[in-house]
Amino acid sequence: MIETLYFDGDDVVILDQAELPERVSYERCTTSEQVADAICKLKVRGAPLIGVTAAFGLAMAVSRFADEKSELPEYFEHHLKLLAGTRPTAVNLFWALERMRAVFQGHPQLSPKEMARKLRSEAETMFAEDIRVNNRIGDYGQELLEVDSRVMTICNAGALATCGYGTALGVVRAAHKRGKIKKVWACETRPVLQGARLTVWELTQDQIPVTLITDGMAGYVMQLGQVEVVLVGADRIAANGDVANKIGTYTLATLAHHHGIPFYIAAPFSSVDLKRPSGQQIPVEELSLPSCVYT
Amino acid sequence: MIETLYFDGDDVVILDQAELPERVSYERCTTSEQVADAICKLKVRGAPLIGVTAAFGLAMAVSRFADEKSELPEYFEHHLKLLAGTRPTAVNLFWALERMRAVFQGHPQLSPKEMARKLRSEAETMFAEDIRVNNRIGDYGQELLEVDSRVMTICNAGALATCGYGTALGVVRAAHKRGKIKKVWACETRPVLQGARLTVWELTQDQIPVTLITDGMAGYVMQLGQVEVVLVGADRIAANGDVANKIGTYTLATLAHHHGIPFYIAAPFSSVDLKRPSGQQIPVEELSLPSCVYT
Repeated sequence: MIETLYFDGDDVVILDQAELPERVSYERCTTSEQVADAICKLKVRGAPLIGVTAAFGLAMAVSRFADEKSELPEYFEHHLKLLAGTRPTAVNLFWALERMRAVFQGHPQLSPKEMARKLRSEAETMFAEDIRVNNRIGDYGQELLEVDSRVMTICNAGALATCGYGTALGVVRAAHKRGKIKKVWACETRPVLQGARLTVWELTQDQIPVTLITDGMAGYVMQLGQVEVVLVGADRIAANGDVANKIGTYTLATLAHHHGIPFYIAAPFSSVDLKRPSGQQIPVEELSLPSCVYT
Repeated sequence: MIETLYFDGDDVVILDQAELPERVSYERCTTSEQVADAICKLKVRGAPLIGVTAAFGLAMAVSRFADEKSELPEYFEHHLKLLAGTRPTAVNLFWALERMRAVFQGHPQLSPKEMARKLRSEAETMFAEDIRVNNRIGDYGQELLEVDSRVMTICNAGALATCGYGTALGVVRAAHKRGKIKKVWACETRPVLQGARLTVWELTQDQIPVTLITDGMAGYVMQLGQVEVVLVGADRIAANGDVANKIGTYTLATLAHHHGIPFYIAAPFSSVDLKRPSGQQIPVEELSLPSCVYT
């Protein structure tokens, strides 16, 4: 399984997904600005992964703190805000940073060095939890699939979007292990092509049969009766169940509804935002790249 | 108005649409093989235009005939079949070539030179008719639009897809002249990007407001209530009204249906195929480019 994120000494190393599938290239980040830049430029993407990556970045920033302890809260908030400002839609980012803040505020007695260790431990716990949660999503989710399923998906909700295994593609993996996957239809996912570049690459690595289609082909393929189920990830889920996800997901959901095809969201609790009553209150990012100015 | 096709002496000159919008580049064809190649490689595209272009190519081929008159029928059929074999879906191609064959078979008394003139005259008549028909489609079609309409379209059913003025974009032009167009949403139309490359360019030339979106965005824009009508062209219309058109058109139609948005096909009678009872009998081209071997 490909590694998306890890600590190397006190540095954070990320897989640069903007380079995939041409190159498997890792980037070493030594400042939280570099981590923010990597998230903003979509080198690191995928709702669960950006949350944990931001937590790694924040822990790293604190490990470099060299001032008086009294300065630490302001320093912490500065780096937290910097990381929180990178992407607006995926709630996992704020969820992970809030969790780091709770640890920070809950242990005022710690020295800066002890705090850095505590925060890193919390970030690493999140990382491990994410993989565990994805495995559970896969186990539960695969029960929804029949043998010989043709699964349509958009964007990349795979190992590359998470700390490992994947959400929607975690379900595909778990189902594939049980011989249930006939093929995956990967929508290319314009404009940034996460489907074509990442999902096709990731599934091919695991020898799971995948066919790439343009986003506009989805309706035609459904009309031909060649889709048993649609499985996608989520950037954020509101209290009423409304889901924000990559542009094109709503089109897929409407098409699935029209054709009577089951449509499932596979996502961890960290994607759920109970403070938003409905999707109307979820800020939808309209990306124009690149506009990052962190480094 | 941009010229898509014309005779220069005995040669056929085509606008190379594969080069748009980077370059307005014309290509001189001196053989029917070159014309077939241009159609097959999508240098010339658009259902109405490929029909008339094939007719131009066939007339040109006959003008170069230098053998005994008794050889002419076989020569004519050879070039007709060559041109007919370029694209399978748009029926205008076969319609135009059948019309040329009827002229050929209806005048056995003519000498090869006279026949060449006759066929060229027929091809030029088709060209003029197509523009006239598009103007009529525009006049009739604009009546369906209210003031301040936001029109969604896919691919390019414009002046570039015809001998001039356009079908779906002819309606847009006629409505724009009457102040009815607030904006056009142009779906980029993967994989060959006729929307992004051609529709945006064509409308911008005429200063008609246009916003480019990825194909996957169509549903979201409809959900936001920012589309009053969807207007598209057709490659072929079966006897029961089923329509074959660029991939993604069915997705748009399904989305429009779900959102209660009127969806109109703008096409000439040369796109209607009464011999096909329904869309099931229309051959749908699955392009893999470039696979042309004419020249």
